[in-house]
Amino acid sequence: MRKVVECVSNFSTSEPKTVDLILNEIKKTKNAFLLDYTFDDYYNRLVVSFVGNKKSVLEAALNMAFKAVELIDMRKHKGQHPRIGAVDVVPFIPVKNVTMEECIMLARKFGETLAEKCGVPIYLYDEAAKSPERRDLDWIREGEYERLAEMIVRPERKPDFGPAKPHPTAGATITGARKVMAGFNVNLGTADLKVVKKIAKALHAKKGGFSNVKAMAAFIPEKNITQIGMSISDFEKTPLYRVFEMLKVEATRYNVPIVASEFCGMAPLKALIDIAAYYLKIDNLTEDRVLEIAIQNAIEKGGVPE
Amino acid sequence: MRKVVECVSNFSTSEPKTVDLILNEIKKTKNAFLLDYTFDDYYNRLVVSFVGNKKSVLEAALNMAFKAVELIDMRKHKGQHPRIGAVDVVPFIPVKNVTMEECIMLARKFGETLAEKCGVPIYLYDEAAKSPERRDLDWIREGEYERLAEMIVRPERKPDFGPAKPHPTAGATITGARKVMAGFNVNLGTADLKVVKKIAKALHAKKGGFSNVKAMAAFIPEKNITQIGMSISDFEKTPLYRVFEMLKVEATRYNVPIVASEFCGMAPLKALIDIAAYYLKIDNLTEDRVLEIAIQNAIEKGGVPE
Repeated sequence: MRKVVECVSNFSTSEPKTVDLILNEIKKTKNAFLLDYTFDDYYNRLVVSFVGNKKSVLEAALNMAFKAVELIDMRKHKGQHPRIGAVDVVPFIPVKNVTMEECIMLARKFGETLAEKCGVPIYLYDEAAKSPERRDLDWIREGEYERLAEMIVRPERKPDFGPAKPHPTAGATITGARKVMAGFNVNLGTADLKVVKKIAKALHAKKGGFSNVKAMAAFIPEKNITQIGMSISDFEKTPLYRVFEMLKVEATRYNVPIVASEFCGMAPLKALIDIAAYYLKIDNLTEDRVLEIAIQNAIEKGGVPE
Repeated sequence: MRKVVECVSNFSTSEPKTVDLILNEIKKTKNAFLLDYTFDDYYNRLVVSFVGNKKSVLEAALNMAFKAVELIDMRKHKGQHPRIGAVDVVPFIPVKNVTMEECIMLARKFGETLAEKCGVPIYLYDEAAKSPERRDLDWIREGEYERLAEMIVRPERKPDFGPAKPHPTAGATITGARKVMAGFNVNLGTADLKVVKKIAKALHAKKGGFSNVKAMAAFIPEKNITQIGMSISDFEKTPLYRVFEMLKVEATRYNVPIVASEFCGMAPLKALIDIAAYYLKIDNLTEDRVLEIAIQNAIEKGGVPE
């Protein structure tokens, strides 16, 4: 039975050479496999999705982190996405025949090793968190890199591994384990960031929006438009179509057109199924009724030999 | 490299015991794997999707056909779906590492054997057709079972295998090879079949609707509603959302509510992607950006060992 772990590493860079060198660490790792990566100047952030077995994913995640600590200097970093360090967030995600507990162990091992080898302070978050507040990425990231030195000495912000002071160029790193989530960005045909912040607020959990949804507004200078970047932690309870329809309602109110959308990282099949089921009123659509998945299941059950 | 063929066998029955005995032939066949089956009283039709390698799919398809010829008596058959025989249509579909040519060979072998063993006349259709008219299922099925004896003696309707006269209880069988298609049914909140036939007509290729779309209207007595049953032969060129939106336009015109929809048989992933991409304005969604598919591809490329 194949065990597959996904890791989605977030780095504070969009410098093409640095991006290449970080990605190269996956290629150099046996049995680790790059799924997807995106980077943007306006976020100044690289998001890399990769999979493998536990051993190879941990190895690749560490080697990428070592490379990022070596190359990225947070003292010069600017970007619209909140961040606390060069290796900002590294979640491990159980995707096949792996338990959450196994991913928590991976996160701990990752954090412990990165602290030991590079002196980077480490916070454990989400399922790996050791206190309720630390389940929340934003709570840990409060103050960002710029105020890290001041925050990190507070007792409630003591790192889980490593020193209670920022790494001079790499800041701190957050790692943990979590369920598959959906990252979804919507581009809006306006340059008015103030309006777009209002729309994002309407969706954001802590501001009265949907639970499970984080939404932030960003300006995309090269296109002179704006973007709402969202992460939906439980897209089965809070389906994407519902979030999108509410975004449409608020955008219409301000006469802002929706230009285009994209998944940030991989698109979970269940999210697509829920979208299709809603708009076409399909009442019996499940993952195992999707041809490609059903065939795969048949192969795995030994139904189709080579 | 695993070779996977799908077969979607259509039988003229909805009698539960007969259904069971036909499905049982798949279970009895080594390396054949049932994906899905549906049957309805109003169509009086059983549709079975199964997969396997070439050998096992051919074996299961033949054994199911033998069983159906033994059990189904077309002289007593009534149903709203057009049909020509007990084993009405049996297409072979290349789904993984198999060519259309290989599926054409399977269809020929299937037809030849069924004609030989049971004396059922066989027509080859779609990619396996030996003349342009015979690519079209409806052309071959014209007159249905009731007028088969009269049609089958026409030179242009001479069977590809077997005698030029109907099997007394099993009629004739159509087999062939085709690409994956989408079967999609939409239930409408009216008992007025006349109106629903108008809506179906607006979608049907030969009546001025979308090329690649066949649409028929049926009445569902137990719910006192109607259904438009569609098959979309090329759902990449004619995406499902477009057909659904046009159905909605016509239904609105007649004040007919859409109650629910369902895929008939398996849902092809590409059809779901196109639906999600349209309604959420996603401009870069492809199959390999779907998490479950990307992971599967990684495993197949050897990226994740056991």
